Amino acid sequence: MKLLRFGNAGQEKPGIEKADGTRIDCSGFGQDWTEEFLENDGLNKLAAWLESNEADCPVVSNETRLGPPIKRPSKIICIGLNYSLHAKESGMEVPKQPVIFMKATSSLCGPNDNIIIPRNSEKTDWEVELAVMIGKKASYVAKEDAMDYIAGYCLLNDVSERDFQLSHGGQWVKGKSNDNFSPLGPYLVTKDEIQDPHNLNLWLKVNGKMLQNSNTSDLVFDIPTLISHLSNYMTLLPGDIISTGTPAGVGLGLNPPTYLKEGDVVELGINGLGTSSQTAVNYKG
Amino acid sequence: MKLLRFGNAGQEKPGIEKADGTRIDCSGFGQDWTEEFLENDGLNKLAAWLESNEADCPVVSNETRLGPPIKRPSKIICIGLNYSLHAKESGMEVPKQPVIFMKATSSLCGPNDNIIIPRNSEKTDWEVELAVMIGKKASYVAKEDAMDYIAGYCLLNDVSERDFQLSHGGQWVKGKSNDNFSPLGPYLVTKDEIQDPHNLNLWLKVNGKMLQNSNTSDLVFDIPTLISHLSNYMTLLPGDIISTGTPAGVGLGLNPPTYLKEGDVVELGINGLGTSSQTAVNYKG
Repeated sequence: MKLLRFGNAGQEKPGIEKADGTRIDCSGFGQDWTEEFLENDGLNKLAAWLESNEADCPVVSNETRLGPPIKRPSKIICIGLNYSLHAKESGMEVPKQPVIFMKATSSLCGPNDNIIIPRNSEKTDWEVELAVMIGKKASYVAKEDAMDYIAGYCLLNDVSERDFQLSHGGQWVKGKSNDNFSPLGPYLVTKDEIQDPHNLNLWLKVNGKMLQNSNTSDLVFDIPTLISHLSNYMTLLPGDIISTGTPAGVGLGLNPPTYLKEGDVVELGINGLGTSSQTAVNYKG
Repeated sequence: MKLLRFGNAGQEKPGIEKADGTRIDCSGFGQDWTEEFLENDGLNKLAAWLESNEADCPVVSNETRLGPPIKRPSKIICIGLNYSLHAKESGMEVPKQPVIFMKATSSLCGPNDNIIIPRNSEKTDWEVELAVMIGKKASYVAKEDAMDYIAGYCLLNDVSERDFQLSHGGQWVKGKSNDNFSPLGPYLVTKDEIQDPHNLNLWLKVNGKMLQNSNTSDLVFDIPTLISHLSNYMTLLPGDIISTGTPAGVGLGLNPPTYLKEGDVVELGINGLGTSSQTAVNYKG
């Protein structure tokens, strides 16, 4: 299934995208896509419900705004330097253990919402990433069991402000958490639809120019390793997002470094997980 | 007011502690203490409701378990190295800008719950801290307006695993987020009850021995500075916790360094915010 949420920011309704690309309103199911939904076997219940109710669900126009495909998860955990060429372009070593940091969940937005360049920002940057969504509570999970804890996968742009991240006195969370720094989606694709999450092309263009273009086969630490490792340090809850890191080609690594300015258009995508597009705008307030 | 939550973990009910120390069940008010409660002027509505209903609220025994005084906030932001003697004992410079990191909200627990020493931990440490709870949405707040965004204050033990934090490949969030690493409370004390949050004694004992004993007048960055600074990097939401840092006297800074082992009892307190006590136990699972 491809789960999505549509409507105005903060008032999204739950829906799905069918195999033929039609989007439908699943409000009749009676639950939003949340931690509780996933915790209570919501994916299976939804699939069963759709068998008898899909035909009655109202169609949603493809023009309708999408929100993030999960309502406020408990946490967004990101993996740093998890593609070796990206570590190199950042001037850092490939890590021996996964580097983890958080993004404030208040940074979540819809996949095609604007990227808001924060006040006093000169280095707002892009990062296409494969995000894994947790499906059930995970604590001290063995690597060989880790895939059982996944609900599905999403496309994420881990928008980053490099000065805030690296030069404002630490830690990285400072450059990762402004509003609209986490465009997520278009959808949560359940894991049964993704044959091999370690063989997905992922790419990102700025103003039509391809800048990131890689494959998840290049991950330094694979998904089971990440889930198992993280679950030693914190309990992962249903809906939690683990963003697996970005490949080379971010603005920081260009020569000369190049960052987003008002009007720039960022497009990104991952095989099987859809595409998203954001326009950069200056903060106004 | 002193707001608290009582009952079994995950099933807490809302209550308050009256001036005479009696705790009462405020379930009749119809709302738990949450982000939404604070966002919708809950503190004033509760005060008004209590005027006519307080006498009818059931008394809660002081033996009843307390939970954290807020239900799952969106984030727990901590300030690192915000007392100069603690920076020194940690072998680090006093920072020029606030150092910030997050704790996973899944680490929240009641004020007197056990500290769970994680699997493979040898360096589980204590940190008494003054936690500020945000009362309304805060983005780009000026220092002179910052105090208006506070709901109140709480006592927090920012439990930390030093190897996980400093030697497991970064960032600090790794050593701050295990389950029960954030005993919060006993209560949220609304800001009207705290005359000067920058002049509060805070202390912590392990097995009866006083190890931390300082005053919030020693904060490197004061509360308005922290709120204003943070609000440049992320939107603060009602219920969000900003923990203002710990004074000298943590286990890492002792000679030789000393960490918690099963059976150790940690007691801590801040003037006007009450006390808490946790027993350290090894993770069993």
